[in-house]
Amino acid sequence: MKELKIITRNRNEMIDITDEIQKAVEEENFQSGYIIAYTPHTTAAITINEGADPNVQKDIIETLNKIIPRKGYHHLEGNSDAHIKASLLGSSTTVLVENKKLVLGTWQRIFFFEGDGPRHRRVFISLFPR
Amino acid sequence: MKELKIITRNRNEMIDITDEIQKAVEEENFQSGYIIAYTPHTTAAITINEGADPNVQKDIIETLNKIIPRKGYHHLEGNSDAHIKASLLGSSTTVLVENKKLVLGTWQRIFFFEGDGPRHRRVFISLFPR
Amino acid sequence: MKELKIITRNRNEMIDITDEIQKAVEEENFQSGYIIAYTPHTTAAITINEGADPNVQKDIIETLNKIIPRKGYHHLEGNSDAHIKASLLGSSTTVLVENKKLVLGTWQRIFFFEGDGPRHRRVFISLFPR
Repeated sequence: MKELKIITRNRNEMIDITDEIQKAVEEENFQSGYIIAYTPHTTAAITINEGADPNVQKDIIETLNKIIPRKGYHHLEGNSDAHIKASLLGSSTTVLVENKKLVLGTWQRIFFFEGDGPRHRRVFISLFPR
Repeated sequence: MKELKIITRNRNEMIDITDEIQKAVEEENFQSGYIIAYTPHTTAAITINEGADPNVQKDIIETLNKIIPRKGYHHLEGNSDAHIKASLLGSSTTVLVENKKLVLGTWQRIFFFEGDGPRHRRVFISLFPR
Repeated sequence: MKELKIITRNRNEMIDITDEIQKAVEEENFQSGYIIAYTPHTTAAITINEGADPNVQKDIIETLNKIIPRKGYHHLEGNSDAHIKASLLGSSTTVLVENKKLVLGTWQRIFFFEGDGPRHRRVFISLFPR
């Protein structure tokens, strides 16, 4: 199991972690199977989406902010919006690996999402051979 | 494959199933790998979120109710809201296991979600060694 | 790894791919474990929901359209709504297999979702034995 350390700088942020995951696959000389990328934080998530245009990330974050109100919750820490986003996006993702390469579409990148930053965060990468 | 039996008492409900999954891991003397928790019901889901303050669950349920209207659907059974919640949260989750312990963050718990209760429901736990 | 080819005809569409996945399981004489169904497209997703009444799919699509605005984004391609739906539903799903059968509930079917069709699309099916 590999661990990525991530520092976020805004309250809501998406950070592309594809290269670091691909590097972990190569360092382990991992031929084929799949990886699970998992974040142990309840206001964070892992999601796959377009990475070519940073505006897609901006649109995802802004739209989630419109759908999920910032305030008006029972939880006194005031970050329930981030908890809800985490459950909607999901705390882990699974990506297939063939010939030491992550099987991703042309436009797909793997993102770490944080909804209650800035924070120091972790992502675990676990490799499972076929 | 282990099976958990769950009885829900409200229309919308989140039930913490972490301890039962951890117990299944220990009973099988399962050292390392991951578990898949899966629910075979189309108005239910599995999601990971904060378990320390029950208000977080309350906020998740109330916000989903605000986002997804209760009425106004084609499906005559009148529970399309619950079907939509199920697809947004997802019918399964994957959790890593190291040294017979679920790899969860300090605040993370695994929840069964039902959107059309009260119901008698099932969750399957399947263990996959590394 | 098997590949399904899918042709969508509308902008938003859900296509039941359960039979094709079950067929892949049988062709490989796959006894027990799980499959990962994965789509490499950033406006598409895989989700499990009710398949008996097509109105459930209609309700899911119409409700997502209500929640996520069609316009008003930074991304110039004009399909950010579809990218957001893809992240909410998720680009892959995991389904257990026992005795060469997908472990699905009575009403559960596996759907390919496209939010920016019509398109020629692909789904990868990867089989992992226990």
